[in-house]
Amino acid sequence: MPKRVAVVENILNANDRMAQVNRLRLDKSGVLAINLMASPGAGKTSLIEQTLPLLVSRMRIAVVDGDLATSLDADRATAAGAHAAIQINTGGNCHLDAVMLGGALEQLDLPQFDLLIVENVGNLVCPASFALGTHLSVLVASIPEGDDKPHKYPGMYRGVDVLIINKIDLLPYIDFRMDFFKQGVEILNPGVITFPLSCRTMEGLQAWVDWLVEKVRVFKSRASETQT
Amino acid sequence: MPKRVAVVENILNANDRMAQVNRLRLDKSGVLAINLMASPGAGKTSLIEQTLPLLVSRMRIAVVDGDLATSLDADRATAAGAHAAIQINTGGNCHLDAVMLGGALEQLDLPQFDLLIVENVGNLVCPASFALGTHLSVLVASIPEGDDKPHKYPGMYRGVDVLIINKIDLLPYIDFRMDFFKQGVEILNPGVITFPLSCRTMEGLQAWVDWLVEKVRVFKSRASETQT
Repeated sequence: MPKRVAVVENILNANDRMAQVNRLRLDKSGVLAINLMASPGAGKTSLIEQTLPLLVSRMRIAVVDGDLATSLDADRATAAGAHAAIQINTGGNCHLDAVMLGGALEQLDLPQFDLLIVENVGNLVCPASFALGTHLSVLVASIPEGDDKPHKYPGMYRGVDVLIINKIDLLPYIDFRMDFFKQGVEILNPGVITFPLSCRTMEGLQAWVDWLVEKVRVFKSRASETQT
Repeated sequence: MPKRVAVVENILNANDRMAQVNRLRLDKSGVLAINLMASPGAGKTSLIEQTLPLLVSRMRIAVVDGDLATSLDADRATAAGAHAAIQINTGGNCHLDAVMLGGALEQLDLPQFDLLIVENVGNLVCPASFALGTHLSVLVASIPEGDDKPHKYPGMYRGVDVLIINKIDLLPYIDFRMDFFKQGVEILNPGVITFPLSCRTMEGLQAWVDWLVEKVRVFKSRASETQT
């Protein structure tokens, strides 16, 4: 194969290879990692804030927050009880990549943790293209964004393992056709696990938390089987 | 200056140079162009839908819609009375650039129009870095996104000429501190023209429409002065 093609392939695959390195480190340490993605303001940070208090007595949790400029999100994760919170400032970059996450993992004593929540930059486009090495991709959609979003951001909706539909408390005040939204999702990502909830009223939150606890339990038991 | 530096500079400036070409074409045709940017679901398309019926009897309007995949937005602009609507499918790209807009301008008989509204891809990061050659940048923020967004997306808030705060009808149902939001805006973009409104109830919409009509009037009278 000509040398030049190999070089181009290496560049293209650099992120994926680093993502594999991250995955291996997480697996070895028995940490289940989720990549939390959403449009700006859909409620990623609120979800972390409301989920953590229901989890911190049952498992040890680290949060990595990607943001353009501030450390507001890591501060909120710490206040919500995260056992560790690291802020990645992307310096204007529109997504996290595997190298950025790798740098954050360096700062964590991974075997101490059971769950790592990575909060990506608020963006429905670019984060979908950059694998981080996490085990699960979770998309937080929200009612006020409108029911046409699966149709308009297919790359994001197609690639996620879990779909959270946040701000259901606003349904009475917004023209949101849940059937139309779910049809759009179904075409792109049939059977995707879905949790409608409200981080404001807490409605529906327990189902998501229970699911996450079970996921961590199964992951840890498999990890310990592999090691014995 | 070494040749290599010049090459790098040319690549970096390619978008800006194409933006200048677009601007010249728009100026020569007497078309005021606005670049409408927002987070997904903040209400760019709804704003176009509600604004157009109030304008179409007074001026001729073209709409260029940037989207990842569908033509839903151009269809809605046409239904709202746009005299022309062109859809740019970015094929997954997270922003419009000046070359894409240039291609759309080719398809329009520009001197026929007074106003061009360019609806960018829903994204609070990348579109801020790509000049299109438009005269005004308008950001549509929305109440459900939360009051911390200026702090978290400074590049976007810093660079716009007009800020629309949409969905104010949802203020009673959401914890949104308008003072905190406006403080964030003021630090980044002091004195930016701001229109709080609701595309759902039409509250506040007339002020925005009146401002836009006046902008087009001044622009057209200057353009005709330059030509005489």
